[in-house]
Amino acid sequence: MNFSERLDQASHQANSLLCVGLDPDPARFPAHLAGRSDGIFEFCRAIVDATADLVCSFKPQIAYFAARRAEDQLEALITHIHAHHPGLPVILDAKRGDIGSTAELYAIEAFERYGADAVTVNPYLGRDSIEPFLAYRDKGVILLCRTSNPGGNDLQFLEVGTDNEKEFLYERVARLVAGKWNQNGQCALVVGATYPNEIRRVRELVGEMSLLVPGIGAQGGDIEATVKAGRNSIGMGLVINSSRAILYAGTQAEGGRNFAAAARQVALETRDEINRYRGG
Amino acid sequence: MNFSERLDQASHQANSLLCVGLDPDPARFPAHLAGRSDGIFEFCRAIVDATADLVCSFKPQIAYFAARRAEDQLEALITHIHAHHPGLPVILDAKRGDIGSTAELYAIEAFERYGADAVTVNPYLGRDSIEPFLAYRDKGVILLCRTSNPGGNDLQFLEVGTDNEKEFLYERVARLVAGKWNQNGQCALVVGATYPNEIRRVRELVGEMSLLVPGIGAQGGDIEATVKAGRNSIGMGLVINSSRAILYAGTQAEGGRNFAAAARQVALETRDEINRYRGG
Repeated sequence: MNFSERLDQASHQANSLLCVGLDPDPARFPAHLAGRSDGIFEFCRAIVDATADLVCSFKPQIAYFAARRAEDQLEALITHIHAHHPGLPVILDAKRGDIGSTAELYAIEAFERYGADAVTVNPYLGRDSIEPFLAYRDKGVILLCRTSNPGGNDLQFLEVGTDNEKEFLYERVARLVAGKWNQNGQCALVVGATYPNEIRRVRELVGEMSLLVPGIGAQGGDIEATVKAGRNSIGMGLVINSSRAILYAGTQAEGGRNFAAAARQVALETRDEINRYRGG
Repeated sequence: MNFSERLDQASHQANSLLCVGLDPDPARFPAHLAGRSDGIFEFCRAIVDATADLVCSFKPQIAYFAARRAEDQLEALITHIHAHHPGLPVILDAKRGDIGSTAELYAIEAFERYGADAVTVNPYLGRDSIEPFLAYRDKGVILLCRTSNPGGNDLQFLEVGTDNEKEFLYERVARLVAGKWNQNGQCALVVGATYPNEIRRVRELVGEMSLLVPGIGAQGGDIEATVKAGRNSIGMGLVINSSRAILYAGTQAEGGRNFAAAARQVALETRDEINRYRGG
């Protein structure tokens, strides 16, 4: 089963296009986890166990672990997800990108060390920087296309090509990935929820391919616009990520004792709101 | 002193534009280091101590450490360089790139956790993905511009802009960095030695700014062409990286017992060959 099929299977299982982003910030942890040496793992584990039946994937962001010397807790977290929630893909958000010989090592990091099912990758270095990831044929490779941040315009919105065939750089990336790099049904694209028009355009360019859409919740993207612009012909093909709005839904009230239940509640509402716009 | 001044000072001190890239591959280590739990650190430490007076900087590539769960050895290595070779900048080659809130964490990783003096960064996400690095005003931020790998053409060599003002994407990146992002003299650009014409073009666009040039040695870039194309008006402004050709110069002969001396010899020859083309 290739990554795209595994993602679809997980989406069907949970009737969900929601991905919970695991961006653990100890400064926002509930009181009883603050200061624990395994607090990052325990916080994320509780979120995972409280929301696993509502999501199609989890997306740990590696910077949150690396900045705090917590690679071991990231390893433990992914091991926990695979052991307790089999079939749920883990997307390691690392946005790696380097020449081929170095990319081989980043692929080892993501797929062998951490056991991720997919990794986000930056397309700026081109084809041979992606191939070492593609060589793991059962894994997913998710290329940045149109990112959710304001600076995304600086390069991604430049017009490229000849006068007869103008397009934006992010469109070129979408066409490159869909037309040339995605030979095993293992590629997906990152398109920010803050730009529904571009989500729609990317959907036109890439057929049924999955789109990873960050930017709803704390970043302000609109769910209805995102789903209507991005769903594929069968109301699938979207992995809609929410991180902060779910993780920290209940970390303040009552010392944060019920943070996992509060996260579950927001995840449930978000999943259901997404589902409202998938059909018809 | 900003990063560019620190780099110049280190170059003057060693009369060198050479940077030794620390890409440790245990499969190529000399016999007496193979299998040691601190082998990665010990290998790199020996290379560093044998070449420090011949270089303007060291560039550890983080993937080589991350793929092997050796972040602790990378920390120890950079601590060693700062303690024993003060004034020599350490460039962490990590090619990070993410939205602002995540980039803040990558900046913590590079500058606070590892204590690097500069970090390589991918420009695809634009201005706000770079700002958290720039906020460390005494640190260097080295943007990918024209990379040394074949796939670099896929995006970097696309023509962008309006009909009246056509340029390649890598030229636009060079102009953006030189004109807008480099406000504290802390930016530099990565331009591969495999493309001397593009090195020359970038030099025309960015004035005296430093260029980090990988790709001589194992990747086949020509030193004379690189230096003549890339030197600035005073024969400086280049950080020319060699990794494998130096690291593994003597790891095979006689069980690799003299690998550090062999590395020093190649570093010396490379520095001197570079210097031959700096003037006139």
